[in-house]
Amino acid sequence: MRPTDLLGGRPVAVIGAGLVGAGWAIVFARAGLDVRVYDADPGAIDRALALIAEQLKELESFGLIDDPAAIAEHLRPAYQLAESVEGAAYAQESVPERVDLKRRLMQDLQQVAPPNLVIGSSSSGIPASAFTHDLDIASRVLIVHPVNPPHLVPVVELVPSPATSGTAIEFVAALMQGLERSVVMVRKEVRGFVLNRLQGALLREAWALVEDGVASCEDIDRTVRDGLGWRWSFMGPFETIDLNAPGGVADYANRFRSLYREIAGSRTHEDAWQPELIRKVEAERRSLLSQDALAGRRAWRDRRLMAFAAQREKSLEQDAK
Amino acid sequence: MRPTDLLGGRPVAVIGAGLVGAGWAIVFARAGLDVRVYDADPGAIDRALALIAEQLKELESFGLIDDPAAIAEHLRPAYQLAESVEGAAYAQESVPERVDLKRRLMQDLQQVAPPNLVIGSSSSGIPASAFTHDLDIASRVLIVHPVNPPHLVPVVELVPSPATSGTAIEFVAALMQGLERSVVMVRKEVRGFVLNRLQGALLREAWALVEDGVASCEDIDRTVRDGLGWRWSFMGPFETIDLNAPGGVADYANRFRSLYREIAGSRTHEDAWQPELIRKVEAERRSLLSQDALAGRRAWRDRRLMAFAAQREKSLEQDAK
Repeated sequence: MRPTDLLGGRPVAVIGAGLVGAGWAIVFARAGLDVRVYDADPGAIDRALALIAEQLKELESFGLIDDPAAIAEHLRPAYQLAESVEGAAYAQESVPERVDLKRRLMQDLQQVAPPNLVIGSSSSGIPASAFTHDLDIASRVLIVHPVNPPHLVPVVELVPSPATSGTAIEFVAALMQGLERSVVMVRKEVRGFVLNRLQGALLREAWALVEDGVASCEDIDRTVRDGLGWRWSFMGPFETIDLNAPGGVADYANRFRSLYREIAGSRTHEDAWQPELIRKVEAERRSLLSQDALAGRRAWRDRRLMAFAAQREKSLEQDAK
Repeated sequence: MRPTDLLGGRPVAVIGAGLVGAGWAIVFARAGLDVRVYDADPGAIDRALALIAEQLKELESFGLIDDPAAIAEHLRPAYQLAESVEGAAYAQESVPERVDLKRRLMQDLQQVAPPNLVIGSSSSGIPASAFTHDLDIASRVLIVHPVNPPHLVPVVELVPSPATSGTAIEFVAALMQGLERSVVMVRKEVRGFVLNRLQGALLREAWALVEDGVASCEDIDRTVRDGLGWRWSFMGPFETIDLNAPGGVADYANRFRSLYREIAGSRTHEDAWQPELIRKVEAERRSLLSQDALAGRRAWRDRRLMAFAAQREKSLEQDAK
């Protein structure tokens, strides 16, 4: 179902207007939904709307949208929380990743939200029950975790708390599918959900390899960006190994499990995120990319993601033929 | 230096003519090097040459090569090991991943190889010292591990053994750079090297998430192919987190290390590669893709990799402007 039909003309609230909130606003507005952008800091709202205008121009230049002005017309600022959610069918909160801030917001929303508002949280690791467990609105809150930037990368993790209603889960799943998000259902409130658990597992090994002097962090990045990342950018880890042995994944497991068991058994570092190691990696990264150049490189990253998105659309069309 | 200049007109031997060997033959021939393709099974040589002819046509259709016939002229079969390495400057062995087979091959090569032949092994996890430690040719052997298929994905891991000479390492590094490979220097002979250690860490968490009932293997694949994999396809894990906090990687570590520590601490499964779990994942994969469809899907994968390679060339040109 199209998002505009699913919401029956009701608007969406974007709460927290940082980079993640701005990305979400584009996702909703692109689909024709009316979006109210709120932040506790009024200056952040104006900055977000200016950033969105720039991002829409870039999306147009990559052929990913047709009419930036028409999309921008769906956006308006809301300088009060109550105003942002008035009459809204859905709210996406993207306030900073702190339990106390998310909890205070949920308490405030309980006061001002319309009775059937469903609330998605962009939390990247804190489960919803940690900030909704004793609130009446708990049944209408779940995690809807995007990748940064949300308007460029399609995946979202849906992580209900034990209190989230089936109705709310189904509504959000339908909404996200309508928004052309790639929906991952996370069935238990595990710390880090699926995405950051997978990223964390790979990062842990990456930190440890640097610490052990096996490879530089640049060579580790190279191993992924010129190797593993190519296949993972359109297949995922299970399909990759399923296609990497003549008989499929079980055949692959028979061939390689002793190697992977030895690898797992030889990793002894309990905690890779140590201050001295972080300083070492920071020093190598800053020798490759100065502090001043970070913002420019982020813009480069977003252009590469846009080129990737445009290429992916072509490939999906090709596959459909 | 161009590979043809570096080798001074001497040919290259491809030993072991499976999928990996066939891919290597294309890498060498594309750069104008004369290649002799050997396999202990003569039928495998003929099948490899036929496969290469098909693959060259596909590369042409994606604009990745101009003249398949000119490339194919650089290839010829060698039905004896001695014939394959006669006068050769470099040999790339891609026999199956078994210590006994690799060891026997090295013993044979010690008999027939010209005195200054350098030998790269496509081993994906067995270190060179495991099959060369007591041989005279040990100083001329190192691991040169590609990703499958080698002619499409640019990364290669160079893993010298303690016996490998500096001259051999420098020669292979220069050759691989000339072949437009993305060279990763692995400084210690760790099991799995860098690539399979990173892949193994992510797979271990992926298997465990399926076992714990947190997500289906399709949803785990989706998390990577529609999320993590987009960034990793051109940045690598360290650059990804370096750009994902305003102040760079140290700032990111300060913000997220407690999350990642909790994630690492909550992973208790010692060995994820258990028969029952493998059967479960195999069953889910076969429900998504039947055994009969595996070969077709591999061809699809290779076309997607070719499209990715063509897009990457455009992006690199764009970056260079």
